[in-house]
Amino acid sequence: MIESLDPAVVGPVLERINPADAGAILDRLGHERAAALLGRIGPKHAASVLQYLDPARRDEALAALDASKAGLLRDLLRYAPETAGGMMELQVVTIPVDLTVEEAIAVLRRAPRQALYYLYVTDRQGKLVGVLNMRDLLLASPGDKISGFVRTGIVSVPAYMDREEVAELMRQHNFLAIPVVDGEGRLVGVLRPDRVVSAAQQEAFEDMQRMVGAGGDERATSPVGAAVRKRLPWLLVNLLTAFLAAAVVGLFEGIIAKVTALAVLLPIVAGQSGNAGAQALAVVMRGLALREILPDTMRRVVFKEFAAGVLNGVIVAAVTGVAVLAWDGRPMLALVIGLAMILSMAAAGAAGAAIPIVLRRLGRDPAQSSSIFLTTVTDIVGFATFLGFAVLFASRLT
Amino acid sequence: MIESLDPAVVGPVLERINPADAGAILDRLGHERAAALLGRIGPKHAASVLQYLDPARRDEALAALDASKAGLLRDLLRYAPETAGGMMELQVVTIPVDLTVEEAIAVLRRAPRQALYYLYVTDRQGKLVGVLNMRDLLLASPGDKISGFVRTGIVSVPAYMDREEVAELMRQHNFLAIPVVDGEGRLVGVLRPDRVVSAAQQEAFEDMQRMVGAGGDERATSPVGAAVRKRLPWLLVNLLTAFLAAAVVGLFEGIIAKVTALAVLLPIVAGQSGNAGAQALAVVMRGLALREILPDTMRRVVFKEFAAGVLNGVIVAAVTGVAVLAWDGRPMLALVIGLAMILSMAAAGAAGAAIPIVLRRLGRDPAQSSSIFLTTVTDIVGFATFLGFAVLFASRLT
Repeated sequence: MIESLDPAVVGPVLERINPADAGAILDRLGHERAAALLGRIGPKHAASVLQYLDPARRDEALAALDASKAGLLRDLLRYAPETAGGMMELQVVTIPVDLTVEEAIAVLRRAPRQALYYLYVTDRQGKLVGVLNMRDLLLASPGDKISGFVRTGIVSVPAYMDREEVAELMRQHNFLAIPVVDGEGRLVGVLRPDRVVSAAQQEAFEDMQRMVGAGGDERATSPVGAAVRKRLPWLLVNLLTAFLAAAVVGLFEGIIAKVTALAVLLPIVAGQSGNAGAQALAVVMRGLALREILPDTMRRVVFKEFAAGVLNGVIVAAVTGVAVLAWDGRPMLALVIGLAMILSMAAAGAAGAAIPIVLRRLGRDPAQSSSIFLTTVTDIVGFATFLGFAVLFASRLT
Repeated sequence: MIESLDPAVVGPVLERINPADAGAILDRLGHERAAALLGRIGPKHAASVLQYLDPARRDEALAALDASKAGLLRDLLRYAPETAGGMMELQVVTIPVDLTVEEAIAVLRRAPRQALYYLYVTDRQGKLVGVLNMRDLLLASPGDKISGFVRTGIVSVPAYMDREEVAELMRQHNFLAIPVVDGEGRLVGVLRPDRVVSAAQQEAFEDMQRMVGAGGDERATSPVGAAVRKRLPWLLVNLLTAFLAAAVVGLFEGIIAKVTALAVLLPIVAGQSGNAGAQALAVVMRGLALREILPDTMRRVVFKEFAAGVLNGVIVAAVTGVAVLAWDGRPMLALVIGLAMILSMAAAGAAGAAIPIVLRRLGRDPAQSSSIFLTTVTDIVGFATFLGFAVLFASRLT
């Protein structure tokens, strides 16, 4: 159906759906048709879409485009979409450093009528020298050399810098836009803050997705197949750890057969410590991502989460104990679940903090499936303490 | 100890720790001492710190500051820190609309030597009229009226707008800075993009924290008492739902007493569907927050997550079935856990998508404790299907 629609109609639609889906659509079209559609959408989005075509089809589509648009897209494609180069604007107004104020104004006069962020000054090789304040230009005499006003020593980022680092840089300094340079220090583009705002949000949500073993780049609108492919491996890891936790329960089959109330209460202990651990994990993940946790405070953060686990554990244990006493009548069962609750919630707090911190220290992504590792710990500790205490006090339970 | 240190030393330290902690420190000092420290840190951070003092102590500290700094801080304090007003810069260069180019340049000459984002044009009442392009000013004749160049109809935000909406606005449009206006349309400040980048990240992580029932504003460095106060209410809600899930298990005590292997395998079904649900929840939360999910695609997203649950469920069920057969030997037990796994993972996917979507539709925060509601659903469905099938096929299990 899409083959028969006017590109002027389909183009704006492609621009609004996510690049992976748009890529899947273009993949099914001929290259003439694909090129006609690519010509209708903005270069940044078009480049993102092209990332999802296989290289041969991508080259065909580029060849069918007009030369100037194809050149622009090839430049954008040289950088991965999650780097400074992949996010930057390519059209920057640059001013050679050896001009006079009058000549610089003439350059501005010829520049495209788009918003100017900063006026970047380069040498004859295109290397970034500094930035020119528009106000200085406005207040200077026409014959002055601009080299007298250039602010040097400005911060630029290499084109391959990860967008997470770029967001952090923009957050720490007062940047409105950041120039992007290639390996030789040549100015290749400029990063607009609106792109960085978007990247900062996406990084945070990707952390959240990776924590539970979904792919960082999955969208709610991604096809089911992609969702299954990305999530299944981690579900199988989770299955393995669930068997591990089940094996712990298996060690106590004897007492469960005698006291079936234990099987009924088991999910309560595991569920509470799982939730307490998830709270600690969320707070610590945020602290790591926003650099609120520094290397020398990591130990203190783990201790704080342990302490929060103990305090919350004591209160939750008291409430649970009273409820179990009312339901079951055996004071010893109330004591057993209370003790297990305190120990497992304390362990959950410490593990929720320690898992991402240890992953970060090992140079790994602190988000990757940390939630799955955490559940393993909270399940095993919850089951072992609850059933262990039950065996210890078995004589008063049966 | 902090009483005896030089404010020039302590000031920069206070500037680097989070406002709540800095507030707690200032709270223990005399107001002279507190004012001396506040004088050393930037006005935006100082205002954030002041939010955490009680009003009486805040007024004392402000009274001890010099008048101009105190006035600036009072302006900032009028707006909540999570609004446009609380994040904005107060020093904006404004140009009255009835000036000539020459007069406007004279205004620029007298303006403070800081970065100029846009030149905002106001009427004589201070109401925002539009924005002036510095390039237009540079290329115009001295005697021209600036009213000829003013771009009107620009987007501004009210000072009370929530920072999440501001980030979304900046993301959708190509804004470098956004003017902030009061209820009468008077320009009161300007929002810098670096502040919005920071806010966008924080909003995302706050969503993550609220999902598991931790307070949105909790930091890894917050005191233990704050952590307990914010998290405990939701842990108690979770406890209530855990009792609900336990009650479902309680209905099946008879079969568990006969087939204790059921108690051992129970956590596997609940754990898998819990993880599958958390994956769906993370992807859908991101989609809602970044407006990737539109009202008319909500139904499709729930169906997609249901389908992903079925597909992942079939594969996980097959693996689990084989493992259970190898461990236990009863083919019927393998079949029971496999069927329960498929049904509960499908329900988990649909619930993980539906819970935040329904909360949003009801006008509630889709993040708030959605993870706790989800676990309730996945536990109950997991337990009920697994133990229900076990009762159905009890004759072949015992």
